[in-house]
Amino acid sequence: MNNDVVVSLSGGMDSTGLLLRLLNESRKVYALSFYYGQKHSVELERLKQNLIYLKEKGFDIEHNIIDLSSIMGLFHSALTEKDFKVPEGHYADENMKQTVVPNRNAIFSSLVFGYALSIATRENKDIDIALGVHSGDHAIYPDCRPEFFMSIQDSFKLGNWESDRVNYYLPYMYEDKFFILKDAMDSCKNLSLDFNTVFANTNTCYQPNEQGKSCGKCGSCTERLEAFEKLEIKDPVIYKE
Amino acid sequence: MNNDVVVSLSGGMDSTGLLLRLLNESRKVYALSFYYGQKHSVELERLKQNLIYLKEKGFDIEHNIIDLSSIMGLFHSALTEKDFKVPEGHYADENMKQTVVPNRNAIFSSLVFGYALSIATRENKDIDIALGVHSGDHAIYPDCRPEFFMSIQDSFKLGNWESDRVNYYLPYMYEDKFFILKDAMDSCKNLSLDFNTVFANTNTCYQPNEQGKSCGKCGSCTERLEAFEKLEIKDPVIYKE
Repeated sequence: MNNDVVVSLSGGMDSTGLLLRLLNESRKVYALSFYYGQKHSVELERLKQNLIYLKEKGFDIEHNIIDLSSIMGLFHSALTEKDFKVPEGHYADENMKQTVVPNRNAIFSSLVFGYALSIATRENKDIDIALGVHSGDHAIYPDCRPEFFMSIQDSFKLGNWESDRVNYYLPYMYEDKFFILKDAMDSCKNLSLDFNTVFANTNTCYQPNEQGKSCGKCGSCTERLEAFEKLEIKDPVIYKE
Repeated sequence: MNNDVVVSLSGGMDSTGLLLRLLNESRKVYALSFYYGQKHSVELERLKQNLIYLKEKGFDIEHNIIDLSSIMGLFHSALTEKDFKVPEGHYADENMKQTVVPNRNAIFSSLVFGYALSIATRENKDIDIALGVHSGDHAIYPDCRPEFFMSIQDSFKLGNWESDRVNYYLPYMYEDKFFILKDAMDSCKNLSLDFNTVFANTNTCYQPNEQGKSCGKCGSCTERLEAFEKLEIKDPVIYKE
């Protein structure tokens, strides 16, 4: 039997694919999401819709949205600062570094770990932490790389009693968005969930317009569209053009 | 000339001593404080009073209080849970482990680092992070030990671009509360600040009563009282008995 699991859910396609995978593994899921002043906070609205849909289908997820905007809203990043324009282009491009949010995954991971360890010690059980990090992010986001996660896991082990009760589950670490999408389709099929409903309830775009339509041009949209194209299916989210 | 510095300020005597030291070093100080559902949140009220006093004396500190209670309020600890009694006795006692808050310093450090790196990259300057960790905490709080801070600094370096712009300043790491108190007295003298006013505006107790009076019995009070006794001065905070 699989351990219960705490997952960090952004409302993007990677963590949504991961959530489906965890449900397909019949795990009890605790989820944390973070509002950190991101311009694309529509991801959290879509996520709430998805969790309502999943609940209707019998999957009840304990979910908390954590508001970190009072501090992370002060951080230096194109994703959060009003006058700092989100760059367009491919993820591998140098200017995409402007979309880095300083120390973001260290912050999220620290909170997720503390929450997971609290459940483990209070309920006297081992628990997993699942994160949707994948290889497509490694080039521009140093805090999505395997060596970062190896290192911070060591730090958390040093910094806590009973830390062995918490283990990491990073199934997409060496995979790409195409793999994630395919994995999500398989999970939907097994769980009798409608793939289009679930993925219409995601957002990947860094600069959606006021109606929540995706731009199709930022690095994040570009990578998502490539994955759907490679899988030869239509992306159910709505694009500006 | 000393670098500008971001300091994590709890409102306890250690970080208050550190703040005085930084002001004595003529640094520009940015401060972060955290509300995480701690029962002894009177520390933040006293801190605000101290910052008002310091401003009157010409020391203007950019201060933000970050509310993490929505997530850390769910953590398993005697410091945050209503029905989990704060233990009495000496810090070295085994039951004092109940006052550990899972991953607390990893969480605070991650946020402080992201904030510091944002200032460094936005304003194109090197910056320091100052933390009031000291040797008295090493026994029961694994996340106050040198090896933890060495490790998590490495993680942050791996996880961020331009991380060399941020350096740690931990002057009390191998010192005790007696040293901190003496250091604070020296700083007050140099800065023409009233020691009793500043230290009346601190809280160390884990279970102050409704009037904010310290218990004098928890591990934290015990250690504080020992430091004042050793220095042969009267503690200006008010105790229940």
